[in-house]
Amino acid sequence: MNKHFCRSALFTDLYELTMAAVYFEREMFAPATFSFFIRSYPPNWRFFVACGVEEVLFFLENFHFEEEEIAYLESLKLFKPKFLDFLARLRFSGDVYAMEEGTIFFAGEPVLEITAPIIEAQLIETFVINALCFESLIASKAIRSVIAASGRTVVDFSARRTHGVDAGLKVARASYMVGFAATSNTLAGKLYGIPVTGTMAHSYIESFPSEIEAFSAFAELFPENTVLLLDTYDTLAAAKKAVQIAKKLEAQGKRLKGVRLDSGDLVSLAQKVRQILDAHGLPYVKIFASGGLDEYKIAEVLAQGAPIDAFGVGTKMGVSADAPYLDAAYKLVSYDGRPVTKLSSGKKTLAGAKQVFRYEKDGKYQEDVIGLREEKIPGTKPLLKPLMQKGKRTRPAPDLNTLRQNIQQEISKLPRKLREIRPSQIFYPVSLTKNLLALQEKVEKEIRDKELNL
Amino acid sequence: MNKHFCRSALFTDLYELTMAAVYFEREMFAPATFSFFIRSYPPNWRFFVACGVEEVLFFLENFHFEEEEIAYLESLKLFKPKFLDFLARLRFSGDVYAMEEGTIFFAGEPVLEITAPIIEAQLIETFVINALCFESLIASKAIRSVIAASGRTVVDFSARRTHGVDAGLKVARASYMVGFAATSNTLAGKLYGIPVTGTMAHSYIESFPSEIEAFSAFAELFPENTVLLLDTYDTLAAAKKAVQIAKKLEAQGKRLKGVRLDSGDLVSLAQKVRQILDAHGLPYVKIFASGGLDEYKIAEVLAQGAPIDAFGVGTKMGVSADAPYLDAAYKLVSYDGRPVTKLSSGKKTLAGAKQVFRYEKDGKYQEDVIGLREEKIPGTKPLLKPLMQKGKRTRPAPDLNTLRQNIQQEISKLPRKLREIRPSQIFYPVSLTKNLLALQEKVEKEIRDKELNL
Repeated sequence: MNKHFCRSALFTDLYELTMAAVYFEREMFAPATFSFFIRSYPPNWRFFVACGVEEVLFFLENFHFEEEEIAYLESLKLFKPKFLDFLARLRFSGDVYAMEEGTIFFAGEPVLEITAPIIEAQLIETFVINALCFESLIASKAIRSVIAASGRTVVDFSARRTHGVDAGLKVARASYMVGFAATSNTLAGKLYGIPVTGTMAHSYIESFPSEIEAFSAFAELFPENTVLLLDTYDTLAAAKKAVQIAKKLEAQGKRLKGVRLDSGDLVSLAQKVRQILDAHGLPYVKIFASGGLDEYKIAEVLAQGAPIDAFGVGTKMGVSADAPYLDAAYKLVSYDGRPVTKLSSGKKTLAGAKQVFRYEKDGKYQEDVIGLREEKIPGTKPLLKPLMQKGKRTRPAPDLNTLRQNIQQEISKLPRKLREIRPSQIFYPVSLTKNLLALQEKVEKEIRDKELNL
Repeated sequence: MNKHFCRSALFTDLYELTMAAVYFEREMFAPATFSFFIRSYPPNWRFFVACGVEEVLFFLENFHFEEEEIAYLESLKLFKPKFLDFLARLRFSGDVYAMEEGTIFFAGEPVLEITAPIIEAQLIETFVINALCFESLIASKAIRSVIAASGRTVVDFSARRTHGVDAGLKVARASYMVGFAATSNTLAGKLYGIPVTGTMAHSYIESFPSEIEAFSAFAELFPENTVLLLDTYDTLAAAKKAVQIAKKLEAQGKRLKGVRLDSGDLVSLAQKVRQILDAHGLPYVKIFASGGLDEYKIAEVLAQGAPIDAFGVGTKMGVSADAPYLDAAYKLVSYDGRPVTKLSSGKKTLAGAKQVFRYEKDGKYQEDVIGLREEKIPGTKPLLKPLMQKGKRTRPAPDLNTLRQNIQQEISKLPRKLREIRPSQIFYPVSLTKNLLALQEKVEKEIRDKELNL
């Protein structure tokens, strides 16, 4: 799997290395705790799905600088030989508390906390944010299409429009995890064991002397797996050709799997195509829709009664078009036993190592409370689990299909109003424990006293 | 360079493979021409910068399926052994006409056209769109920050928020190509020879017992390269501490490089910090700004007189936040000598192999004309160049710094009104030659006659 992913330790902002050099110079090797969280919701979102944790664990477990990377750093003439020697031998030796992938979480909650000698915890910042932020973004975006399709099939068609290849693979994995049925991305199918699927392109139709010849050739080679694309020239004319193909397949004891609509007014086209198919005794031929779909469009066409059985969702999910990034942070919350915070306007950080406690009642999530790591709150479930200790995973990576099953249960526990994709002012309640509030006030006061009275 | 990028031939949509299987079955080995173009502009954009062409050439030159990839395809039980044997031996043998990276282009213009046996030209579609679409998106987005900064330094800070690692590397390269001065992404610095830069993080400050100790430690280790982050606790209090550091450095004959503002009202803070620095005889200490910047914010703070010398631009450029994808297509335009098109509503494709001809006068671009590939238009420059013949590059990959210089000239040739980042209704004129129009009408008529009269 490694050769398709870059997990180089050098994928880090230069300042992580210069700061590390200062820590090294000053012999600052004490443990630091950093906390990853998402500050706020994109419009219309009211929850997130944790994803990217496994990628982070993999990265940490294999963290090291290659010889040629050290040579490059040397060439910058910024670093002392002793520090470069130290880097060449550096491995990640810290602990990770994190939510399992597929956990539903809310704005402001720590999703992952790392405790390690400060140099280690600092150097990994760039990669950790990159992985958690993007994969959680896509998982959270993709599940909205699953919700909107309410039981109908949704498939990932995004590979050609994601931000690079790495993104394409991560999108296929995250969308499958939250309930997509398959991906068109063949490499993702191989790497993750995700079912792969596809139909045909306009170019395919055009390369034949006529549309019906193109349809016939495909159905002949793939009699069990043919979904005919209808909109190359004229959707309804093509639907009648699809009937011919279906009848030919029936004569061989086979069934045409489906037809695909990729442009035009999906509602009226789907209705007319359904009528044509049904009028010819082909109720089993499914209608697939694609082309600029997202959760809003899926909900809209279904609300208008479009008889669509499956949706190919591409670009708008794969780049999370209406929310292409999350306001995420990876912040120092404690160094050498001293809780810390910053006071920058509008960007508060909760000091200290923390835990998230969830109340559940009658199979529904009720409320979350963020507290100190060592607190115990009876009747709640702690969400941050010790997934890595001293640089080693505490358990093997979970199976993707298991995660996929778990998330179905997770989502059913979310109050219905929070699951809706439409605008609403209802948010899930998240509060802080008295102990955490007291710590935060104490730390902020100490800083104000020390730093602002010049 | 290879190990940091996935360029697997299996990064393709499954339908490319099933269509290829039909072509193989039908012995359709004739050449096809596919054309890549961008249909329309995102809001406020009026031009694009070509990027990703070198990635495509690299991919094509090395195109092949690995043994284990063929084994995976076999496991799908979709393909015949003869076709899999064919795939195992397949290499890319076609021709590529494309714009050089850094070329300015406009909506509707072919940027890259590939002519190859249809199976080859079809299988590479997913990767080609992915690379060209994303890299051109970022180059076109990033140059807007360079324009807005009008001569001031702009630096790529996006690594932690790009959609995966591959995207982070491509963003660093594309933004440097269009005029960014440096990147914070150390791996990109190594791979592409881009200057790397950085300041310090809030975590760094917080890990020290006091802000002044954090500042001192950094300046001591990096006396030539210190940019102090001011907003961890209170920006103006920190500015006074920066003065102390600068004076200490002066005593050693060194100069504090700069200070960084990362939150709050950048205009008033920059003005106040500038006053503090100037009042202490430190006019040479530069002010860096970062935090949610894009071309609009840069233009706004400069218009309001913020004395900012350099901008760190991250998330909003790295994910192209207001336009996270382009409406791009890779369409069949000819098969076996027969020009083709499709009629899908609102999604026309220009038939036939084409060329883009550019008129230039007095050092400014005047107008582009899209014509047939074999047309000659005196007084124009053809933009699509034969960059690959029979699967081999016609020239080595150009040097990134050369591309970077070329783009400065390119942008100066763009009429001023088209260079502005603000909304406007002025667009660059692009027309079609009579010959191309005639061909298009002929092909469309043929298709209507053949496909729509059932």
